[in-house]
Amino acid sequence: MMYKRALTKPDGRALWLYSRRPIDPDIVATAPAGGPVEPRSHLRWHPLRGEWVAYATHRQQRTFLPPAEFNPLAPTVDPASPTELPAGDYDVAVFENRFPTFSRDPGPVPDGTGTETAPAKGRAEVVVFTQNANASLGSLPLDQVQLVVEVWKDRFEDLGSQSDVQYVMPFENRGVEVGVTLHHPHGQIYAYPFVPPIPARELEHQQTFFDAHGRGLLQAIVAQERQDGRRIVVDTDDVVAFMPPFARYAYEVWIAPAAPLPSLAELDSGGCRALAVVLKTVLTVFDAMWDRQPFPYVMVFHQAPTDGRRHPEAHLHIEFYPAYRMPGRLKYLAGSELGAGTFTADTLPEEKAAELRAVRERLA
Amino acid sequence: MMYKRALTKPDGRALWLYSRRPIDPDIVATAPAGGPVEPRSHLRWHPLRGEWVAYATHRQQRTFLPPAEFNPLAPTVDPASPTELPAGDYDVAVFENRFPTFSRDPGPVPDGTGTETAPAKGRAEVVVFTQNANASLGSLPLDQVQLVVEVWKDRFEDLGSQSDVQYVMPFENRGVEVGVTLHHPHGQIYAYPFVPPIPARELEHQQTFFDAHGRGLLQAIVAQERQDGRRIVVDTDDVVAFMPPFARYAYEVWIAPAAPLPSLAELDSGGCRALAVVLKTVLTVFDAMWDRQPFPYVMVFHQAPTDGRRHPEAHLHIEFYPAYRMPGRLKYLAGSELGAGTFTADTLPEEKAAELRAVRERLA
Repeated sequence: MMYKRALTKPDGRALWLYSRRPIDPDIVATAPAGGPVEPRSHLRWHPLRGEWVAYATHRQQRTFLPPAEFNPLAPTVDPASPTELPAGDYDVAVFENRFPTFSRDPGPVPDGTGTETAPAKGRAEVVVFTQNANASLGSLPLDQVQLVVEVWKDRFEDLGSQSDVQYVMPFENRGVEVGVTLHHPHGQIYAYPFVPPIPARELEHQQTFFDAHGRGLLQAIVAQERQDGRRIVVDTDDVVAFMPPFARYAYEVWIAPAAPLPSLAELDSGGCRALAVVLKTVLTVFDAMWDRQPFPYVMVFHQAPTDGRRHPEAHLHIEFYPAYRMPGRLKYLAGSELGAGTFTADTLPEEKAAELRAVRERLA
Repeated sequence: MMYKRALTKPDGRALWLYSRRPIDPDIVATAPAGGPVEPRSHLRWHPLRGEWVAYATHRQQRTFLPPAEFNPLAPTVDPASPTELPAGDYDVAVFENRFPTFSRDPGPVPDGTGTETAPAKGRAEVVVFTQNANASLGSLPLDQVQLVVEVWKDRFEDLGSQSDVQYVMPFENRGVEVGVTLHHPHGQIYAYPFVPPIPARELEHQQTFFDAHGRGLLQAIVAQERQDGRRIVVDTDDVVAFMPPFARYAYEVWIAPAAPLPSLAELDSGGCRALAVVLKTVLTVFDAMWDRQPFPYVMVFHQAPTDGRRHPEAHLHIEFYPAYRMPGRLKYLAGSELGAGTFTADTLPEEKAAELRAVRERLA
């Protein structure tokens, strides 16, 4: 059972509280001092790459690694110094980013941009995984991880139903190595007014495969990987975590339901639980490596667009891009990756999957 | 006048020395101790993204920030401890990377990769800009920068004529912020056995524009930017440096010949000089910002493929991706950039181009 309350912050932004228990109706939404931030963001078309670039100049004012006593994601302790979240009994919270790249009312597009423009409509939300500032997603109890999955699903459905949203991407940036400015366990959701270039390209290839074979590309890969076994990290009946044979990062793990569910919307309660089990296992393995707590990564969801069409070619999955390629050695994206789009790796997915499996077995 | 000598290192790798003066025929090629490194690299196909990923496991042994006395890019001082370069009078040197991602003989492709594979044929070369370990490309005398441009052209022509090379990309990674392992001023050249995804996509859009308008997309952009002026950093008659209206990085500068030359091969001596003048100016401006020496960046060349076809749609240019978005604040590629392919910027190209112009005027 998931309880949910929708509130509105004093500055007009939306806040949702989620819990396994009924939520006190007296909880009132808070917002940090400073008043409303007027979003100022627009899109410019990059005609050579064929993609939109988002400019959000109001983000220059955003919070940068504040001291712990100003953690804006912790529940408010002193009503005179409100944070983003109220005090009270709830488990997970979602609110509209105070410094959104994409928003409902992104403001006017400036003149003289020299290229095609559009308002940066859409949404940018923050998902706070727990009230505990010192936890991490993988360290939470399984039921709480499951609740986070249910929250992602809930937000996916709501955001996906907005007419100005074509693609919803929950993600988590974790660690200073990937630029995190707030250490409280949290993720984000970007709701784009277009299908962004990476999922667009992937869906195009998935569509071609689906048309040729009558089943999904990722479904075929999962079947093959289960048969092969070498790149599997965790496999339950319902969900599999593996390193794809074509991993670009040293510890790139993908988590996918075995069934070709296009999006979070198709996960029932059991599906959310099954995904949470494997997600928690993978995160626990990551955090047990090298005594590095937490293991830094970018985690992204890939799934069906919310463009009003059916997407049987899509297959919900999570991709992890860990920051390190070995202890103390970051993977830098440089000339070949940024300039050519060709990743270079010096390790093989087979070796790294075996390493991750060994950590999992040690923990079992 | 450019003098050139081709040599072969004791371990079989090629070395080219370049100079404005005749090169002593007695100079003998050197190689660091340790003997030949057997390349072991292969490509795997990423069927969702539709791109090759390169695996080069022998690169795990590569040199990581050695102390200055072991600088492998400095000329050899003690013949008992040879570096990559011999002592002697020359200005610029190019040699085949000891740990190449792409090479002539990349070794066998392993079994059981679970996806389509290919040998990582091609070349990976190191371009040493000067014998002076403490210089930077922009701090070199103009004539030496011009010589470096002439060397890029020379290597482009040679590599482009190889039957297993489809795309030649000179680039420079500068600064620990972008993962540089050796501080001696140097760049690299990757010669790919395919047209990599980013230039492939750009060329496709350039082709569409060319077919529709009878002239190049970048040529049209340059003409418009000259007219507008706001995003121009430096403009000579022949070469223009500007921030594209759709810049993805805070200080993303592009340098392009005004004439739509498809590749380095079309630069005559005057063209090399003109490019060197603007390149040196841009680098001097970068290095004068914030007292940060050197200003870290990834610099890449985009130009025509070497696939045997004519590419009138291509337009030679340099793109800079600077690591910082403001003093002390790195631009991190995280969820939106890596997972969606959508860049988010919090500054506008117009403002940043004005900032760069102000530095240039201060220096003038």
